[in-house]
Amino acid sequence: MDSDYGVPRELSEVQQNRTLYQPELPPCLQGTTVRVEYGDVAIAADPAGAHVISHAYPHTYGQPLAHFLRKAANVPDAKVISEHPAVRVGIVFCGRQSPGGHNVIWGLHEAIKAHNVNSKLIGFLGGTDGLLAQKTLEITNEVLSSYKNQGGYDMLGRTKDQIRTTEQVNGAMATCQALKLDALVIIGGVTSNTDAAQLAETFAEAKCATKVVGVPVTLNGDLKNQFVETTVGFDTICKVNSQLISNMCTDALSAEKYYYFIRMMGRKASHVALECALQSHPNMVILGEEVAASKLTIFDITKQICDAVQARAEKDKNHGVILIPEGLVESIPELYALLQEINGLHGKGVSVENISSQLSPWASALFEFLPQFIRQQLLLRPESDDSAQLSQIETEKLLAQLVETEMNKRLKEGTYKGKKFNAICHFFGYQARGAMPSKFDCDYAYVLGHVCYHILAAGLNGYMATVTNLKSPLNKWRCGAAPISSMMTVKRWSRGPATTQIGKPAVHMASVDLRGKAYEMFSRRH
Amino acid sequence: MDSDYGVPRELSEVQQNRTLYQPELPPCLQGTTVRVEYGDVAIAADPAGAHVISHAYPHTYGQPLAHFLRKAANVPDAKVISEHPAVRVGIVFCGRQSPGGHNVIWGLHEAIKAHNVNSKLIGFLGGTDGLLAQKTLEITNEVLSSYKNQGGYDMLGRTKDQIRTTEQVNGAMATCQALKLDALVIIGGVTSNTDAAQLAETFAEAKCATKVVGVPVTLNGDLKNQFVETTVGFDTICKVNSQLISNMCTDALSAEKYYYFIRMMGRKASHVALECALQSHPNMVILGEEVAASKLTIFDITKQICDAVQARAEKDKNHGVILIPEGLVESIPELYALLQEINGLHGKGVSVENISSQLSPWASALFEFLPQFIRQQLLLRPESDDSAQLSQIETEKLLAQLVETEMNKRLKEGTYKGKKFNAICHFFGYQARGAMPSKFDCDYAYVLGHVCYHILAAGLNGYMATVTNLKSPLNKWRCGAAPISSMMTVKRWSRGPATTQIGKPAVHMASVDLRGKAYEMFSRRH
Repeated sequence: MDSDYGVPRELSEVQQNRTLYQPELPPCLQGTTVRVEYGDVAIAADPAGAHVISHAYPHTYGQPLAHFLRKAANVPDAKVISEHPAVRVGIVFCGRQSPGGHNVIWGLHEAIKAHNVNSKLIGFLGGTDGLLAQKTLEITNEVLSSYKNQGGYDMLGRTKDQIRTTEQVNGAMATCQALKLDALVIIGGVTSNTDAAQLAETFAEAKCATKVVGVPVTLNGDLKNQFVETTVGFDTICKVNSQLISNMCTDALSAEKYYYFIRMMGRKASHVALECALQSHPNMVILGEEVAASKLTIFDITKQICDAVQARAEKDKNHGVILIPEGLVESIPELYALLQEINGLHGKGVSVENISSQLSPWASALFEFLPQFIRQQLLLRPESDDSAQLSQIETEKLLAQLVETEMNKRLKEGTYKGKKFNAICHFFGYQARGAMPSKFDCDYAYVLGHVCYHILAAGLNGYMATVTNLKSPLNKWRCGAAPISSMMTVKRWSRGPATTQIGKPAVHMASVDLRGKAYEMFSRRH
Repeated sequence: MDSDYGVPRELSEVQQNRTLYQPELPPCLQGTTVRVEYGDVAIAADPAGAHVISHAYPHTYGQPLAHFLRKAANVPDAKVISEHPAVRVGIVFCGRQSPGGHNVIWGLHEAIKAHNVNSKLIGFLGGTDGLLAQKTLEITNEVLSSYKNQGGYDMLGRTKDQIRTTEQVNGAMATCQALKLDALVIIGGVTSNTDAAQLAETFAEAKCATKVVGVPVTLNGDLKNQFVETTVGFDTICKVNSQLISNMCTDALSAEKYYYFIRMMGRKASHVALECALQSHPNMVILGEEVAASKLTIFDITKQICDAVQARAEKDKNHGVILIPEGLVESIPELYALLQEINGLHGKGVSVENISSQLSPWASALFEFLPQFIRQQLLLRPESDDSAQLSQIETEKLLAQLVETEMNKRLKEGTYKGKKFNAICHFFGYQARGAMPSKFDCDYAYVLGHVCYHILAAGLNGYMATVTNLKSPLNKWRCGAAPISSMMTVKRWSRGPATTQIGKPAVHMASVDLRGKAYEMFSRRH
């Protein structure tokens, strides 16, 4: 399975067949004469934050929306992109891999070369590491040939590092200048796109000629706002996981003696768990957003599950499937508070061994109550975005253990009369993350790659490529671009009676909307 | 996802499409005039065991092989099955579910009804529980309609119990007599087929009219011998798991910072791990049979993995995928000895809490060395076939932890200069076990179901349905039956200098043949 960057690799038969699929383009992007039409100035959705954002992004906030349209015969006003000088474009995978990422690069390469064969697309190796160290690979048809419609990010690799510190931002700028890049395309989720906006602003301020473009690619599906309908990879992840969950449902029904606790990758928001629940019909789903909205404690959740197990046992059903989003632990109020304390102590440089002794009495009591394995996992150093290492915290095991203890207690007391409770835990994450992209993700990513070209050809800076009307067939898709800063929001915390602290503007993760359609469909059934 | 036996259930679109697939029959089974031809008397492969087996199976050992052939125009000698009285047949899922099991029932039902519409097929609910308690469901087209080509065993359910004690065997006989069954078909692996042979023998001895037929269905692929090429479900399991392993390989290559330790369901033998390795090309596979043959200790295996990690790091590769069969723990000599001691103490009725204090000094030292989580898992009560609860013992975590400790030591000592070692553990089991069967398993199971009918129509007792030449297209498949007792072997242990203890004859699990073709292909690459 080893590969070396840029060296043609051996493909399996399935992989070879996959390379033959050629996504189409919506009519607006066909041909070489795409015109750009500007709409209203994009305003941040959070009006109260607009002032803060515009202050932080003076060069890139307040730009208009852009729409890419087919050149009509009679459109004198609209600016038609007709001249296509050769360009030099860099592209980098930021954040975690998501199925379809390779097709963004393919689409961009196609568009660049179609408009001028002398243009160059330069990939950075190993994500931001390569961006800062100028480790590059020129993207050619030969390099691309074995990565078309394939999963993973292995054509270039990625790191999980961000581009945030002044040193990192300056390093990125130095690379763009040294390589004389006209544009830098950043593929990633909320964090990477926030970084892209910051780079764009800094570059504009420093009069660096490189324009920065973001692309919404994350399996979590949590980059969602007024301009972005979904992200590349979410469709694949939900389909692959739903199939596996369905297999578990069949297994539970056949063996009739297990409860499967399945934790779903997807970071803090529960989009993946919700969509998989809609597709695969497990018996129970604990959505982080519901837990947070109702302020359910770990004991409330345990009780809910136990009551459901008991009700099912009364119907002679001693099996079931329960989905748990990996971010649940951060949605449970007391565990979140505990994680925040631990995080604070990490920040103060307290070593892992000493953290537990420095917790507040309240947090310490909770910590000591938890099983040993979870304690170790909660103490892990947080991710680069300050969130807990969600993929490493086995919330499914914690819940299974608490439920088992409670069911045994009820059995002893005689309040539960069913069979002995048996749980089996699974984490569905990495096995779907590397999956081959679905047709939708192949198409969506490929089209976004093309859109990136039109953004940079129009000379736009700090924009994200957008494709909308995605529920319609591809020939109705609409292509455009929106300033990333207009997708930002500003968080506020009260600090004492009269003080409010304001966070940095950022593209924040979108939670599951408890008044949205997906949740409504889900609630109707559960 | 809930269903109740016999009640038509709601199907998803994929499931609905699946029900439309109609497997074909090989030419020898087409039409209603199949003839049976008898071959040589089937002799046990183990000549030394033949005497013991024939003594234990006086009524059913030494019967001839049977071949089912298309009725030719001029075959006066061969017995042609032409009369087809109505029959009453029972069928039961024994052992763990395996993809394709439902199609055995479908095939049998088709054949039974094609030969006499008044025949009845009766399914037992909940496996052997239903067999003993006479909980039945008559199999009809309506019942079958939503289970054709579907995974799981949920049409009838299953238990993991065996039919072994005199009480169980007599209970099964009582059921067969009460229901006036002409035949009882048992779907399962090595254990269930051994039980089937025992039932056949006991029934013959007791002059019970019910004939017993076994069908080779197990995802482990470990029911393999001179008459059985493969088992129903193995093909599906290997395909589904190989796809997931390939996803992990892509993920490892993309993230470039993890070693994935993946434990594969498949009981003691390493067939699933080996086949998946051939299909998906992970970086390393620890086959139980290799470990046993070379008598590798857990420390030897840890060192092998560490050396491989170190060698890869020298080529700047800090990631990889390592497959571990779930049965590995029983192949490691010192862990097997420890498990045997624990098992012995369980047998003596020692409670779980007290076992560790009663271990021999040697076993106790090893036990105390192991991490807490593994100790708990090793202490679990063994399965009904006396093997350890392999699916619950996280050998992948044990190895990952030992390798991490050793790599950190090497890093500190300066003998290893690569990046910090990071492991992520996964167990691939239940999510594949409930998968929809592959085309091969749909066909194979369906044909085996038909073969069962011809076995019982010929009045054979204690036979297993066999289909051979499976690597050729379906129209070249050969159908037959072999006495289960001829697949048995007898195990011997030396007990002191001059005493040899002899086990009961049984259909034993077949290990991976280290001189076989699959292993040879694997060795050539590793």
